[in-house]
Amino acid sequence: MAEAGVATAARPPAEELALIDRYWRAANYLSVGQIYLLGNPLLKEPLKPEDIKPRLLGHWGTTPGLNFIYAHLNRIIKARDANVLYICGPGHGGPGMVANTYLEGTYSEIYPDIPETEEGIGRLFRQFSFPGGIPSHAAPETPGSIHEGGELGYALVHAFGAAFDDPDLVVACVVGDGEAETGPLAAAWHSNKFLNPLSDGAVLPILHLNGYKIANPTVLARLSDTELTDLFSGYGYEPFFVEGSDPTDMHGQMAATLDTVFDRLAAIRARAESGDLSRPRWPMIVLRSLKGWTGPKTVDGKVVEGHWRSHQVPVSGCRDDEGHRIILEDWLKSYHPDDLFDENGALKPELKALAPSGAKRMGAIPQGNGGLLRKELTLPDIRTYAVTVETPGAADEQSTKILGDFLRDALTLNATERNFRIFGPDETASNRLQSVFEVTDRVWQAEILPTDDHLAREGRVMEVLSEHMCQGWLEGYLLTGRHGFFSCYEAFIHIVDSMFNQHAKWLKVTRGIEWRKPVASLNYLLTSHVWRQDHNGFSHQDPGFVDHVVNKKADVVRVYFPPDANTLLWVGNHCLQTWDRINVIVAGKQPAPQWLTMDEAIAHCETGAGIWEWAGTEEEGFEPDVVLAAAGDVPTLEALAAADLLRQALPDLRIRVVNVVDLMALQSPDQHPHGLTDEAFDAMFTTSRPVIFAYHGYPWLIHRLVYKRRNHDSFHVRGYKEEGTTTTPFDMVVMNDLDRFHLAIEAIRRLPSLGRKGAEAVAAFEAKLAEHNAWVREHGEDMPEIRDWKWPYGKG
Amino acid sequence: MAEAGVATAARPPAEELALIDRYWRAANYLSVGQIYLLGNPLLKEPLKPEDIKPRLLGHWGTTPGLNFIYAHLNRIIKARDANVLYICGPGHGGPGMVANTYLEGTYSEIYPDIPETEEGIGRLFRQFSFPGGIPSHAAPETPGSIHEGGELGYALVHAFGAAFDDPDLVVACVVGDGEAETGPLAAAWHSNKFLNPLSDGAVLPILHLNGYKIANPTVLARLSDTELTDLFSGYGYEPFFVEGSDPTDMHGQMAATLDTVFDRLAAIRARAESGDLSRPRWPMIVLRSLKGWTGPKTVDGKVVEGHWRSHQVPVSGCRDDEGHRIILEDWLKSYHPDDLFDENGALKPELKALAPSGAKRMGAIPQGNGGLLRKELTLPDIRTYAVTVETPGAADEQSTKILGDFLRDALTLNATERNFRIFGPDETASNRLQSVFEVTDRVWQAEILPTDDHLAREGRVMEVLSEHMCQGWLEGYLLTGRHGFFSCYEAFIHIVDSMFNQHAKWLKVTRGIEWRKPVASLNYLLTSHVWRQDHNGFSHQDPGFVDHVVNKKADVVRVYFPPDANTLLWVGNHCLQTWDRINVIVAGKQPAPQWLTMDEAIAHCETGAGIWEWAGTEEEGFEPDVVLAAAGDVPTLEALAAADLLRQALPDLRIRVVNVVDLMALQSPDQHPHGLTDEAFDAMFTTSRPVIFAYHGYPWLIHRLVYKRRNHDSFHVRGYKEEGTTTTPFDMVVMNDLDRFHLAIEAIRRLPSLGRKGAEAVAAFEAKLAEHNAWVREHGEDMPEIRDWKWPYGKG
Repeated sequence: MAEAGVATAARPPAEELALIDRYWRAANYLSVGQIYLLGNPLLKEPLKPEDIKPRLLGHWGTTPGLNFIYAHLNRIIKARDANVLYICGPGHGGPGMVANTYLEGTYSEIYPDIPETEEGIGRLFRQFSFPGGIPSHAAPETPGSIHEGGELGYALVHAFGAAFDDPDLVVACVVGDGEAETGPLAAAWHSNKFLNPLSDGAVLPILHLNGYKIANPTVLARLSDTELTDLFSGYGYEPFFVEGSDPTDMHGQMAATLDTVFDRLAAIRARAESGDLSRPRWPMIVLRSLKGWTGPKTVDGKVVEGHWRSHQVPVSGCRDDEGHRIILEDWLKSYHPDDLFDENGALKPELKALAPSGAKRMGAIPQGNGGLLRKELTLPDIRTYAVTVETPGAADEQSTKILGDFLRDALTLNATERNFRIFGPDETASNRLQSVFEVTDRVWQAEILPTDDHLAREGRVMEVLSEHMCQGWLEGYLLTGRHGFFSCYEAFIHIVDSMFNQHAKWLKVTRGIEWRKPVASLNYLLTSHVWRQDHNGFSHQDPGFVDHVVNKKADVVRVYFPPDANTLLWVGNHCLQTWDRINVIVAGKQPAPQWLTMDEAIAHCETGAGIWEWAGTEEEGFEPDVVLAAAGDVPTLEALAAADLLRQALPDLRIRVVNVVDLMALQSPDQHPHGLTDEAFDAMFTTSRPVIFAYHGYPWLIHRLVYKRRNHDSFHVRGYKEEGTTTTPFDMVVMNDLDRFHLAIEAIRRLPSLGRKGAEAVAAFEAKLAEHNAWVREHGEDMPEIRDWKWPYGKG
Repeated sequence: MAEAGVATAARPPAEELALIDRYWRAANYLSVGQIYLLGNPLLKEPLKPEDIKPRLLGHWGTTPGLNFIYAHLNRIIKARDANVLYICGPGHGGPGMVANTYLEGTYSEIYPDIPETEEGIGRLFRQFSFPGGIPSHAAPETPGSIHEGGELGYALVHAFGAAFDDPDLVVACVVGDGEAETGPLAAAWHSNKFLNPLSDGAVLPILHLNGYKIANPTVLARLSDTELTDLFSGYGYEPFFVEGSDPTDMHGQMAATLDTVFDRLAAIRARAESGDLSRPRWPMIVLRSLKGWTGPKTVDGKVVEGHWRSHQVPVSGCRDDEGHRIILEDWLKSYHPDDLFDENGALKPELKALAPSGAKRMGAIPQGNGGLLRKELTLPDIRTYAVTVETPGAADEQSTKILGDFLRDALTLNATERNFRIFGPDETASNRLQSVFEVTDRVWQAEILPTDDHLAREGRVMEVLSEHMCQGWLEGYLLTGRHGFFSCYEAFIHIVDSMFNQHAKWLKVTRGIEWRKPVASLNYLLTSHVWRQDHNGFSHQDPGFVDHVVNKKADVVRVYFPPDANTLLWVGNHCLQTWDRINVIVAGKQPAPQWLTMDEAIAHCETGAGIWEWAGTEEEGFEPDVVLAAAGDVPTLEALAAADLLRQALPDLRIRVVNVVDLMALQSPDQHPHGLTDEAFDAMFTTSRPVIFAYHGYPWLIHRLVYKRRNHDSFHVRGYKEEGTTTTPFDMVVMNDLDRFHLAIEAIRRLPSLGRKGAEAVAAFEAKLAEHNAWVREHGEDMPEIRDWKWPYGKG
């Protein structure tokens, strides 16, 4: 078997360990108090029913382990003047994080209404999981936290994201053994293949095997140390085991192990500084301790300490059940509060002295409030990259390729700041952002071969075939004050739906917390989208992420459908300058027509939606018969081709063409800050004329967004209706009735007054469509007249 | 280091290996042909431009490895009369799966228009990735496939799901090294802690290290064999390495390794049969072979074989570029088609003889078309479990607890069939389904301690803290002909949004494939829902999965909101009897009022929605002033309490109360098969009266569903508006304006004719709400008169 690490450092003297134990007891006391107590915070009197909260809500089981780790990290920070960020994977151990940031003084600094007094402790207890108070998890409200830890799986990717480009930082990441069963966490161990030992910080994973989830043992806790050593050695770590239940022994083990581990980290850095950048075997700690350690041993004859029964509230009903209340009182008193706090509720000075001071405190480290460190990106002028558009639609470009040129120079301009990275699941080049490789590489700490392409120990591009890891790294990177850009196949961004949820919730909550400074927005480029999954087919076709996104708070989310390269440049540049948002950009990577000059693009994007006068039959005092609208690059092409069909077949028809780039512009301004005023909306879409809306995604979203608009009943939306396979681009839009013919036919159907002329046009369109359908099945490619169609009118 | 396995079996004689090599070449030839050729399928003439497809779409890189494995599995199936299901993780290697099922004869049996002739080969080639043809992946159209392999990550969980309760089956699961980087796959290796060596089948993972993804090396391929051996030993496997590029040597290695590995499987079974059920070290294979093996070595001076450049189409532009066309022709001829197929295109008999026959063929094994094996569940009579409801809302029950009683007996009734399992991320008991533990246990093959609760080597309940694994196991189990039930915290079902997508897409496609027999529906119970996340808070509050679900094809999805236990019984029982669907049931686990008798519940559920006459002020010829509607248990409670408030404050008001249990009933029948007729809908919701709709989730979904209904503009929907924290149940609904007071106030606002009486009632409700808000922040629990409110009218 592979070998486990051996702690060779000496254990600290007994008196030092005794002090640490008292500090730990103080944290445990404050944790239990938060879960249980409404009054009598220092137990100066016997516990009465009314001292106990009517609803007991919280999680004890993981908390003593979290407190144990926190106390020992305090020691090592002081001993080595280290900068340590604490990622609390089991975020439901929130009472522990609150208790520790209170003990070290951060909490009272940030929340002056919770001072370091008896009254302050009383308020600290009362507010926890209490209406109008604080949540039960390590939430945005918790000082030093960048990780809520409610949805499990992302502790380790957040930790690595925080460590990139911050060489002076050690991220101590507690991984619960429940969380360790999740997929994202299981993959995240391999993040060490992307961590540079010289230019990045270190991540110290602490796998906390307390043995149980809610109602079950955990898989890893029931493996032998041999299997665990093999597993983590295979993942590229040197595991150090700290195991037991006797506090004194455990304090000694943990202190010696942390000293040894920090020696290892120093050695790794020294080796890297000497020029050896090969991948080290990074240290990690496996902490086997009891679930609910120091809590009640048994309750009502059932084992509680060291069992899943201590997961939440180990002894319940303490208001009404005197026996249970006595268990609680004995438990609280077992920490000897009078040995920890003075008469006024202040932590005793010899314990206070154990915590680091100032920004070294884990609750006060600026990386835990990354907005403090955020520096705006320096971005190049988008006009430098502008595609020349002399005639709309005359020439094709790969829009994302142009954006790649912009990103390349953005990387260069911020290279010395080292605060901007690009993330993607093996798709940066596939998504046509390959220009970035002119100035940087893909980060890679595993083996590199001479035939490899832009693979290096250092680089600004992070690629791994895991959307979870891309998203998690990026979140960790942003939340510690940096910037990023994530490009992804559109369909597979659903893999991180739930991570998106959690990040959006985090951002929403931070809006109400004054001391949290804004962090850079999370920017998605969704490409290789539903309409052009040429090599793949149905499984790769899903435009529904946007529907998921718009369920979150309006203030947090933005969605853009730039129809060409110049609009994409504006949108990309804009998104990289925003903060505290999630921006979703959907744009194709295939060669596609270019419509707007840069000046037009800027004006169009700034409004969010606009009439393309050159595409309709607009003139002074114009009131259209029908509006053809589009959002998305492929729908824009089809809507314009439909306008062409209609203009040719029905020259008297008064047609307006509207394009929407900022989807939120469709909503009313009371629903979304980007919403057009009703006047502007009505001027664009009319108040009564039929609107044929060609939309990139599932049609219902457009109905939803325009629901409050006057003309909403006249909107007829075409989009993806869940039909697809591996076929040609035009066959794809035909399968979903989004093609030019269907759009034109629908417009005519909405205008019964066109009578026979309309019917003739419909018949002609249907015939052409049938001809195409036969052609494509015969030849395997789109009919040339459709494939090569160009906008024939210029801007006249 | 841990030790790798050593293949001790003898290599087969050279002539046998030579035959296998020819078979492999035949599969490779047919694979390349599918990607490239329109005509000239046997290369009887020189390759002309028009022989080549105009659009070259597909993936070559993984395919030769898949074909290599397939050929060797054929050998071992024949040698041991084994039943092997082939899970093709890299499903984009679809040409290989099609080629092999064609060679073994399955393809032509299922698709008689693709016979085993030259013409048939021509059609086989043409249809691939061609409009009107077949998709590029191992899709539902592919015989023997239960795994499309488009979205990566789920091969191994599907394999384990297929193996459970099928002791005669070996599931050979190819895991691509790209896929191996994903989270779900990384966690799935631990599935061996849930596989019983006696009563379940075996899973043989074959990790295919071909070194590259689309544009990058893979992490695992760049680890040493030492690290890989550690890693997979730690995961509980004995890895056997098959490595190289010389076909003859590789055939010998692979054959000897498979023999050794099947010996290991036999030994594991024998040991289990002898009574030792401790967890074995399961064998697995690590196959290191070249990406694009046997393809062009270089193209345009760039390395292609053994490089990511061979991922899709290794040599492109073969129509126009004569040099490339010659490369293609040389490549195809390197397989010597005349040595493989006779003049008429039939595979030569000595090669044909290598494939198994009948249902032993991997394309024909019934587990690959699981509907063939599906046997309906025997279910108990739901009336046995009916909650007695003498007065609506008088007594509380935990609805999911009652369902648990039903599931317990369903497990018993199907125990001998061994075709029904319950899945959940550590939440079966938390979700109150604990009655099932009266008759079964949680499966667990890791260490078991005396203090463990219902943990056993055998059991029908599968719990692991990974929604991905639960979902993937269940999918594999269903697709091989069995039944299942998945209970999950509502918020975290988003973790499998994308897996849901893929399963829904699979089901949608199978509807058009006659030979695919229906499989049991995938049933979700979403509980611990948004309104009652008492211990957790905002991160655990997200009811948006339903919004995600309804984007899929209407025919595939169903969504139920049973308001109490009897309706939940009806819905659960119904869902377990359906097929080819995805059923989503949302129901709370907390004690809650019970409204309907079983007879009423049956009638209500069969219609999907209905007027609760006893709750409104209905009488003969009644036309309400206002409709109070609800979907979901908590909204139902609030809507009824609002009705009570209104009845007391405004005795003359004509109130109707409607409850919706089958959400799809709201849609028009042309949109969903469960949609109410317009007549029935209008009779229920009126055509003009205000409808105050209290909905469990994000309000917009209701607007979407009723969009085509006459009265849709009068719907005012309240639901979750993304506000939450750790607080009391009633404070949660207040934060989202979904409480009884807000509902009643809104009803009055919609009825301006109520004048001063209405205004007085609003003022009273607002005062009561303010009183409650102050109370809850003072006392930490809901005001007793609200918490203990009961429906006061009985049924009169």
